Amino acid sequence: MQKHYECIKACLECVEACNVCFDKCLSEEDVNMMKECIRLDRECADICAFAAQAMMRNSQFAQQICQLCADICESCGNECQKHDHDHCQKCAEACFKCADECRRMAA
Amino acid sequence: MQKHYECIKACLECVEACNVCFDKCLSEEDVNMMKECIRLDRECADICAFAAQAMMRNSQFAQQICQLCADICESCGNECQKHDHDHCQKCAEACFKCADECRRMAA
Amino acid sequence: MQKHYECIKACLECVEACNVCFDKCLSEEDVNMMKECIRLDRECADICAFAAQAMMRNSQFAQQICQLCADICESCGNECQKHDHDHCQKCAEACFKCADECRRMAA
Amino acid sequence: MQKHYECIKACLECVEACNVCFDKCLSEEDVNMMKECIRLDRECADICAFAAQAMMRNSQFAQQICQLCADICESCGNECQKHDHDHCQKCAEACFKCADECRRMAA
Repeated sequence: MQKHYECIKACLECVEACNVCFDKCLSEEDVNMMKECIRLDRECADICAFAAQAMMRNSQFAQQICQLCADICESCGNECQKHDHDHCQKCAEACFKCADECRRMAA
Repeated sequence: MQKHYECIKACLECVEACNVCFDKCLSEEDVNMMKECIRLDRECADICAFAAQAMMRNSQFAQQICQLCADICESCGNECQKHDHDHCQKCAEACFKCADECRRMAA
Repeated sequence: MQKHYECIKACLECVEACNVCFDKCLSEEDVNMMKECIRLDRECADICAFAAQAMMRNSQFAQQICQLCADICESCGNECQKHDHDHCQKCAEACFKCADECRRMAA
Repeated sequence: MQKHYECIKACLECVEACNVCFDKCLSEEDVNMMKECIRLDRECADICAFAAQAMMRNSQFAQQICQLCADICESCGNECQKHDHDHCQKCAEACFKCADECRRMAA
């Protein structure tokens, strides 16, 4: 099995949750309330995709990248959990799970 | 000089214009009006960065990637030019310039 | 369930197979024989990650991106299947699977 | 003028130098000697593109991303400067320039 399997899986699930949340936030009736969420969803999807690929290719920088990824995931999760929308709550959960796995991987 | 120099330059300028427009749209007082712009700014920044890198590394798929890039740039430019904000007008200009260069490159 | 679930899954598995193959090709004793594989693994990982994210966020360009992705996957699969290494054979399989799913999605 | 203009410029020049070096390393007669260079060129191109886009869109994580980028640029520069090829020497120069700008930005 791929090294760092659990962390890669958590990153890919977070990429998906963040992209879904980005799309749905932009389709909400009141987008004004969702602007921090939209911004952070993009940041978080991008760094999680980057971290997953770094682990997959056995990058020597994978731990440092995961450390950064954990910080961005936590910020995104903190913002998402403020909103009641189902996509935000799911995204927050995926972000916190990914932050945990990335911290464990980077330790 | 790098092959496809003009097209790479247009792509990088479009990456910048789209990222600036994304950030500023999300800081406007009424984000609701800007949602298509925000969505397309992200799409367009990502494909332009991808196309630029493909040309830089002499990818055998560079022409196909530029063809797709031209279509996305045109859509983004069409949306941005509807809005009076300076960042949208500048972004539209960068998008149309990039669409032209990418079509020429792909031809 | 996420729209395009099967295609997203095939893209993410291909991202992983291509990154693993990239890493292992660069660790082979004779890298000279693997150079086209290395080059295509990078192209293919990048477009598959891009296509997966485009589908996740419901991009209006997802079909065009998947069409391009199918072409790149097929080229990468054709190169990888020439080599007996286990990582190349697995990568070829993931590439052809992804090419199929992307063609179906783009149709 | 765009905030962080000099750092964005250094990142984009480094993306280009690394992609050119990646392509040319894979076209050298003896690829075996270039494998660390190939690996690091990809890492470095990707993080520099990521850092540039983060600065362009005024990301709240831009400083942390630039700190990581500086470390990767330095590693890539150290590897590239071992090789006499013109593309490696140019890449090393772009990497060290970018590392400097990223450290200044992150400070």
